[in-house]
Amino acid sequence: MIRYAVALLSVSCLFASSALAQDDLLAKAKQQFEPIPTAPPDLPGNVATPGKVELGKMLYFDPRLSASHAISCSSCHSIGLGGADAEPTSIGHRWQRGGRNAPTVLNAVFNKVQFWDGRAKDLEQQAGGPMANPVEMASPTTHVAEQLKGIPGYGDLFAKAFPGESDPITLANAQKAIAVFEATLITPNGPFDRFLRGEQDALSPTQKAGLAVFMDKGCSACHNGINVGGGMYAPFGVVEKPGAEFLPPADKGRFLVSKTPSDEYVFKVPTLRNVALTAPYFHTGKAWDLRQAVAVMGTSQLGTQLTDDEINKITTFLDSLTGEQPKVTYPILPPSVASTPRPQP
Amino acid sequence: MIRYAVALLSVSCLFASSALAQDDLLAKAKQQFEPIPTAPPDLPGNVATPGKVELGKMLYFDPRLSASHAISCSSCHSIGLGGADAEPTSIGHRWQRGGRNAPTVLNAVFNKVQFWDGRAKDLEQQAGGPMANPVEMASPTTHVAEQLKGIPGYGDLFAKAFPGESDPITLANAQKAIAVFEATLITPNGPFDRFLRGEQDALSPTQKAGLAVFMDKGCSACHNGINVGGGMYAPFGVVEKPGAEFLPPADKGRFLVSKTPSDEYVFKVPTLRNVALTAPYFHTGKAWDLRQAVAVMGTSQLGTQLTDDEINKITTFLDSLTGEQPKVTYPILPPSVASTPRPQP
Repeated sequence: MIRYAVALLSVSCLFASSALAQDDLLAKAKQQFEPIPTAPPDLPGNVATPGKVELGKMLYFDPRLSASHAISCSSCHSIGLGGADAEPTSIGHRWQRGGRNAPTVLNAVFNKVQFWDGRAKDLEQQAGGPMANPVEMASPTTHVAEQLKGIPGYGDLFAKAFPGESDPITLANAQKAIAVFEATLITPNGPFDRFLRGEQDALSPTQKAGLAVFMDKGCSACHNGINVGGGMYAPFGVVEKPGAEFLPPADKGRFLVSKTPSDEYVFKVPTLRNVALTAPYFHTGKAWDLRQAVAVMGTSQLGTQLTDDEINKITTFLDSLTGEQPKVTYPILPPSVASTPRPQP
Repeated sequence: MIRYAVALLSVSCLFASSALAQDDLLAKAKQQFEPIPTAPPDLPGNVATPGKVELGKMLYFDPRLSASHAISCSSCHSIGLGGADAEPTSIGHRWQRGGRNAPTVLNAVFNKVQFWDGRAKDLEQQAGGPMANPVEMASPTTHVAEQLKGIPGYGDLFAKAFPGESDPITLANAQKAIAVFEATLITPNGPFDRFLRGEQDALSPTQKAGLAVFMDKGCSACHNGINVGGGMYAPFGVVEKPGAEFLPPADKGRFLVSKTPSDEYVFKVPTLRNVALTAPYFHTGKAWDLRQAVAVMGTSQLGTQLTDDEINKITTFLDSLTGEQPKVTYPILPPSVASTPRPQP
């Protein structure tokens, strides 16, 4: 009888200590992360009206913004594939390969800067890049407005989205519209968001253990904030350079933008939101296995050989970063007419 | 006063005669055309359950069915672009060009046969073609099921769509699912459908005049039925062969399937449903102007030099064949995992 009481006491202590640890974990997590808001954020200087968002969606899906009329934003940033594509690096104009893995468009609005090297300050600036890039959509910047003006249905749509402007069909306005649409592509209410809002059971015990490892080992020194990443730059190989497969010498990352020697092999820390949906990984897209990517991060960024158990826990935690995926109705695009500029062969 | 009465009488006679002519037009049209049903038709031997339709939608949008993992059914049959693409002939694997203009998927379920040469009897059979075609998706037929089995999320989806089957992930079942999804891509309630249901004002006076010309000149001898086409074969150039631009000698059409000499340069009469959305035209996709396409049809098929006024009226009538476009929510696809077969370079 006494032994039984002791046993009960122990169990009760265990519960109390576990509850305390849970509260600690949540408190610690709240210091480092934020849940994804449930409504799209405002973009400075670019008010999101329904007409502008709808126009942006059309442009996002319109392949006629590319020289070939076959590639749209959606080609490499598919809403069905975690906002990215299923390629190491994307296939662009005339089957050329892009230089780096297509980052997800989902929650990109919460990144501090855009592109792997941060060469665009926001979504609006980013949207102009791939359209003009000769290995991506290959549309001369001077041609985009001309193309859109050649599709009569866009006239009213731009006029409504940009009221009071005498010549609303411009590349700059197309970028603004695309940006407000992209800002709607957020994935709130994932298990981790619900946990951060105090729903202790939203994470499984293994996911909680993984979160603890993720913070204890230092992953969250870089992967933090709303996007569990996306907020800073870091050298790839801060402790130990990974092999050339993952870090080919020719791509010096942020250095190509800043020309600052300390920026050699520095890249934007990518968001880990929905990371389970967006293989392959790294700027090279050469890591197809999330477990492998986690292991490489351990050695190259933290100087730690993570154990199989730690890797398991971390990747199970990363699954909790998959949120509610956007519900997007496929837009019906204004048709081409006889005078619409034609695709380049 | 007498002159006034006579004038009134004349006006009243004019109304009566016009009303009679309208009733005649509708009666004549009803003999040749049918409105698009408002619900998807059943496919023989392929019951459309919600789970199968949803699976079919996923497969339709999944680029991992192609060798490159970059091309899906949707790439060339975009729901945003009238169910087709904006190309003369589509861009496929490694930027190869398809041999013929991509036909619209919208209302394709109402075509008697599929492809320009009728080489598939239905949507289910058709769906297998582009996947395996080396210039389109270039996925070996033996590989499709292997690829899908390598994406764990598809397991449950196929099991639900094909209950009771021990090995439901097969190419044949993928084709069935795609077909039932495609059967939902119908565009009912266009002006012409509403007219056929007795709503006289659904067509403008010019559209009615165009419909009359369309029937009187003989266009509807081939372009009739639900799909205003899609129900028969016809030689391109039945009266006068068009130029090689529109009818290149190398593509003998249906003859390539049937090997029957009388099938040389015979093609399926395409549907004219939503034709205003699907430039460019003809199996070559070389006619970018619908007016030009109508004129060529006049000379080549009817031996008639249509006047500008007749062409205007016909093309205005053809606008009335644009129906309500499908509302499709972009599907969220099951993610690849480390063991998922990877894209071919």
